Amino acid sequence: VVRIVALLTDFGAVDPYVGAMKGAILSVCPEATLVDLAHEVPPHDVLAGALTLDAAYPTFPAGTVFVAVVDPGVGSSRRGLALQAGQYLFVGPDNGLFSFVLREHSEARVHGIENARLFRSPISPVFHGRDVFGPVAGHLAQAVPLEEVGPKIEDPVLLEAPEPRRLATGEWEAAVLHVDRFGNLTTSLSGRAVEGARAVEVAVGGATIPWVRTYSDVRPGSPCALVGSSGRLEVAVREGSAAARLGIGKGSPVRVRVVW
Amino acid sequence: VVRIVALLTDFGAVDPYVGAMKGAILSVCPEATLVDLAHEVPPHDVLAGALTLDAAYPTFPAGTVFVAVVDPGVGSSRRGLALQAGQYLFVGPDNGLFSFVLREHSEARVHGIENARLFRSPISPVFHGRDVFGPVAGHLAQAVPLEEVGPKIEDPVLLEAPEPRRLATGEWEAAVLHVDRFGNLTTSLSGRAVEGARAVEVAVGGATIPWVRTYSDVRPGSPCALVGSSGRLEVAVREGSAAARLGIGKGSPVRVRVVW
Amino acid sequence: VVRIVALLTDFGAVDPYVGAMKGAILSVCPEATLVDLAHEVPPHDVLAGALTLDAAYPTFPAGTVFVAVVDPGVGSSRRGLALQAGQYLFVGPDNGLFSFVLREHSEARVHGIENARLFRSPISPVFHGRDVFGPVAGHLAQAVPLEEVGPKIEDPVLLEAPEPRRLATGEWEAAVLHVDRFGNLTTSLSGRAVEGARAVEVAVGGATIPWVRTYSDVRPGSPCALVGSSGRLEVAVREGSAAARLGIGKGSPVRVRVVW
Repeated sequence: VVRIVALLTDFGAVDPYVGAMKGAILSVCPEATLVDLAHEVPPHDVLAGALTLDAAYPTFPAGTVFVAVVDPGVGSSRRGLALQAGQYLFVGPDNGLFSFVLREHSEARVHGIENARLFRSPISPVFHGRDVFGPVAGHLAQAVPLEEVGPKIEDPVLLEAPEPRRLATGEWEAAVLHVDRFGNLTTSLSGRAVEGARAVEVAVGGATIPWVRTYSDVRPGSPCALVGSSGRLEVAVREGSAAARLGIGKGSPVRVRVVW
Repeated sequence: VVRIVALLTDFGAVDPYVGAMKGAILSVCPEATLVDLAHEVPPHDVLAGALTLDAAYPTFPAGTVFVAVVDPGVGSSRRGLALQAGQYLFVGPDNGLFSFVLREHSEARVHGIENARLFRSPISPVFHGRDVFGPVAGHLAQAVPLEEVGPKIEDPVLLEAPEPRRLATGEWEAAVLHVDRFGNLTTSLSGRAVEGARAVEVAVGGATIPWVRTYSDVRPGSPCALVGSSGRLEVAVREGSAAARLGIGKGSPVRVRVVW
Repeated sequence: VVRIVALLTDFGAVDPYVGAMKGAILSVCPEATLVDLAHEVPPHDVLAGALTLDAAYPTFPAGTVFVAVVDPGVGSSRRGLALQAGQYLFVGPDNGLFSFVLREHSEARVHGIENARLFRSPISPVFHGRDVFGPVAGHLAQAVPLEEVGPKIEDPVLLEAPEPRRLATGEWEAAVLHVDRFGNLTTSLSGRAVEGARAVEVAVGGATIPWVRTYSDVRPGSPCALVGSSGRLEVAVREGSAAARLGIGKGSPVRVRVVW
């Protein structure tokens, strides 16, 4: 049996936090195969973490345990969650980090984390990644059943999904959710909204952006709009940064007209 | 048997150095499970590397081999070390990187690295991580005994641990040792110095900082002081950066009064 | 059998791309041992990716599968490649990323990637790392033969290797190929060009740089020139940044006189 434990955090690569959490997982389950997803989620940005997790987890094999920690409320009364959704298990704080997983999987079984026998000891009130979530993920990788982690929970925190508005003109007003490393702009509009359209007109920062299939359909340095790799509408510049070229960032509005 | 080899370096994620060192370990011990601790230790900052290692290694399972490389003296006459401390093995340059491990483990068995049959060949005088420390870590993961690595050493380099001063007033004058990714300030004062105190008064940059148990005991944007996750006194700002908010950084003084 | 799959990309540690590609590999080959080489190759910089791969792959054990993705032409008509060179396998876009591997291994067997049964489905035209290269690497790790991936290819893209010029004076005019994390400057001149020389004179940015064996042969803060860890001539500053100290960067000329 392969026991994959995949890690997503806002801990970065400078500090000891990622290492300490990995050690805590391996101390419970030395056979675990640890996989780093991303550790540079912007500090405390739960929504960014939720979107990143959402774009990565569906490619993993059945049985993968995801431990995700973006946890501004550590040590407070916010609960911890362990949940099964589809063929996956997830562990982390109950602050919305699993919003998109839970919306996708209405059948998910969600449990609170309460069984202190599964924790590291003593527990620091400022580092549950190491002392609570990591060890619980290790136990789940060891096939400990969810029921042992804690009681069933019916009301996990769900973030308001940033939804595009439908304007009176029939256009969508979406927003930039994320600027990636390349300067590509991921928007709040699902690619499904434009599926099968005769034409798509995208306007951002005063400019109209040509609708294409892939980056190389325009010339280097030119902007384009397309369905990005996570299925959302994306604005990009071929071999360049749309964020820099168009002068827009997270939260900026993007206007989309779909012609059927 | 699981053979965990955990890596800590100042090599970063842009250059080929981490990859080359991993290949060298795996060429000796293909069954090794490599675990990245942190690779963005500030370049050449041995004390920062030592503190990072110290905060991460104790969570790992027995038998883990740590290879740590922050090595400004590479190629000079500085020795290499392989040592056993507690249930762990450590490999790296003899420049103080293992100071806190050695202080914690007076029983540690420390050996110099001299047996060239365990090295990669040829040896570059500028990359012992790949050619010396990585391969030796691989051999230790393969259960090669310490004695085969080189002779016993009694005088490994120990860094001056930055210790807080006790002032005539009875207060502690500690210093900021590290600013983490979140802008939290780790100080040189051990949490043990305040254990059981009736009250703790922390002053930094002219401001008095409330003493709390965890970040969420204050309002978002407000400063607080507490025992951090590695057991040291820490100054933080809830959901913000204490470094930016208080305008202080590494080396800044922190005054602490403990009321019994 | 250990199945090592080593990853090199320009995807960074903020976005979900590295995680999504890893999941796609593990879904094909759950027993794979994933090894991160470097994910902060400058965006779209194929030559930088090729040089980084070249400096890391030769340390790995036989049988390692390398999946390298720096892919500005994703979704266009550029081909994908799977190739065997020496005891290694490589997968990625046909854009020059494997230039140095192919130059070193004239016997390499190079195949185009065409067999869609080995891909993830559906295929995004903007993310072949996840949908094509990752899965193909997983299948190669599962011992699928190269022939099944696609037809033999005789003309893979090879980048112009930046070669130093020989001047009328007998000197070499090399260029800075890469500035590493430490500010060390890797040049285009192979260390072989100075092997056995009586003296080597290096001039850069108006300054003459002393020729040494390792960094600590000069005083902290002083510049030096030497054969770097990948066998190329390098200009460095001991415990400092040559890029900052000498005010030069990628592409800057370096003059070298070899005295026999």
